[in-house]
Amino acid sequence: MSHTAPTLRAALAVDLPEDDCALIEQLEPRVTLARDHSLNAPARWNADWNGDPTFTRSPDQQAAFTELLDGADALFGIPDVDPALLAATVRANPRLRWVHTTAAGGGAQVQAAGLTPDELSRVTFTTSAGVHGSTLAEFAIFGLLAGAKDLRRLERDQAARDWPENRWEMRHLDEMTVLVVGLGGIGAATAERLHAFGATVWGTSRSGRPVAGVDRIVPLAELATAAAEVDAIVVTLPGTAATDKLIGEKVLAGVRPGTLLTNVGRGTVVDEDALLTALDDGRIGFAALDVFATEPLPAASPLWEHPNVLVSPHTAALSRQEARRIARLFARNATRLLDGDPMLNVVDTVEFY
Amino acid sequence: MSHTAPTLRAALAVDLPEDDCALIEQLEPRVTLARDHSLNAPARWNADWNGDPTFTRSPDQQAAFTELLDGADALFGIPDVDPALLAATVRANPRLRWVHTTAAGGGAQVQAAGLTPDELSRVTFTTSAGVHGSTLAEFAIFGLLAGAKDLRRLERDQAARDWPENRWEMRHLDEMTVLVVGLGGIGAATAERLHAFGATVWGTSRSGRPVAGVDRIVPLAELATAAAEVDAIVVTLPGTAATDKLIGEKVLAGVRPGTLLTNVGRGTVVDEDALLTALDDGRIGFAALDVFATEPLPAASPLWEHPNVLVSPHTAALSRQEARRIARLFARNATRLLDGDPMLNVVDTVEFY
Repeated sequence: MSHTAPTLRAALAVDLPEDDCALIEQLEPRVTLARDHSLNAPARWNADWNGDPTFTRSPDQQAAFTELLDGADALFGIPDVDPALLAATVRANPRLRWVHTTAAGGGAQVQAAGLTPDELSRVTFTTSAGVHGSTLAEFAIFGLLAGAKDLRRLERDQAARDWPENRWEMRHLDEMTVLVVGLGGIGAATAERLHAFGATVWGTSRSGRPVAGVDRIVPLAELATAAAEVDAIVVTLPGTAATDKLIGEKVLAGVRPGTLLTNVGRGTVVDEDALLTALDDGRIGFAALDVFATEPLPAASPLWEHPNVLVSPHTAALSRQEARRIARLFARNATRLLDGDPMLNVVDTVEFY
Repeated sequence: MSHTAPTLRAALAVDLPEDDCALIEQLEPRVTLARDHSLNAPARWNADWNGDPTFTRSPDQQAAFTELLDGADALFGIPDVDPALLAATVRANPRLRWVHTTAAGGGAQVQAAGLTPDELSRVTFTTSAGVHGSTLAEFAIFGLLAGAKDLRRLERDQAARDWPENRWEMRHLDEMTVLVVGLGGIGAATAERLHAFGATVWGTSRSGRPVAGVDRIVPLAELATAAAEVDAIVVTLPGTAATDKLIGEKVLAGVRPGTLLTNVGRGTVVDEDALLTALDDGRIGFAALDVFATEPLPAASPLWEHPNVLVSPHTAALSRQEARRIARLFARNATRLLDGDPMLNVVDTVEFY
């Protein structure tokens, strides 16, 4: 019986800065991260996993890249962030047992690879969900505050150099009830911060498990009823068949006038036509949106010019620290895999979230 | 020797809703709050302590109001929020021993009354500092987030329907060091929330005592050095001789390009000329100001039209809950006075803060 310590041979399938690669091997010395930076499309900015689209490999480079992938137990990233290349690698490399996706919503990329049930059971897929939790939670709360403090009124008065004689009141998070739709990494981070502001926090969850800072767990089946009783709604859900247009006519029908909305999950979760109607009749008082059903947001979308909408071009999660945070998560998951512990952020291969 | 339980006869010197008056007597039954709502200038909005300026008292009403004030041990509010009337009441009523001011910066109003040292030692003055802590902390963090998330860039791109192809990065509180200038009620509330965001929090304090959520206490003498090492500055100080233009040329000289600033203390603490210079050369990247050296902000002030300034007309503290919070504070302080315990928010009658 051999007592050789288990090790993991991982391959770098996307561009990650060398110091972050070294950090992974330092945090988990049982991991070897095989890498050749010249083989990856270079990132144009921090955590630009797709990399420069003009990048090409020579035939020799392509052969070297394939060899690197085919000799690995695990991949850091989906090769070229291309589901077809992921499928090819899974099929060509029988020793592969783990792929870590650099996206929070990596499940959709895995789904797009069209793997067989056998392949899906052989390889564990994990996502970077949670890595963007803090940055997206910040944007979510910024969006709520912009609505609560009536940013648009402040700006109108400022443009007119008008210091209104009659004092008006801002709204305050510590007097509000906020419904966080989805209590994954982003939702939990949002709830934690809202709790620190003194808000009453409700959150939807499928598991029903308690979450720190959440005063009331709302079953998804009661979403519309709960939405009608709160001052603000934060959407954090990933885009899946089950979440498509979840925040639509039915949920928005009963909300109180002036309800605030921010979406930092996926754009498809919100029915934009229903949202525009609710914005026009004042049920939604302000909407801060980092994500849209179609991205880039089409020039013809009325969301661009709605006075009570703040458009952010899906940038709220981007951070100088993103690559480093994902490297740390990869190292933690490698440790769990090597120790036989349950891994973090495993993709559900039925619903692919 | 008499064992009669001590009681306190307080008089209502400004307009407070009847249910908040009743709350005081309920929270501290040893207090009788003498009141006649018809004698106070009616509030035009919540916590409008000055009340309707067109209000006048008939001679009978004026006599009744004077009698009410002169028979009291304590006053809820400065009568008519008028320092001269405060001075007259202190002189006419030898039993008066406590005046609670409804302003956070009530010290300045007490100072304006021009009381003698004897009068100042006979009567204890307390302020409503801390009542506005949570609302102003919210605005302070909203201001930081507006700068960090580059609100102005978002708005420019939105107006142009431009979804930039090259991704740009927002800044994140959890990657920032924030200097909170002043760790009183507002500063402590701001620090607590910044800590929940994962920011590194520095704070200036005269006492040097540790404060929850503050990673480093900075002596005021090191303000300029510290300001040069942080990403953002939150000003929460009251307006006193010692704080006048404290955030001026010297402190702003060395700050890093793009430093964010928000002021929720008093406008006089910031030298607005020095701030404008720092905004123009980019040392200050964004300033969110709820207070100004002169209020209303004069129409000629360049702050109105500076693209990197958000002007709020000293409204950030106003809250539906304000009167109630002050009523609760009054009841707590009455209990302390009756029990012989140190009172909260006692005005320093040397520096009047």
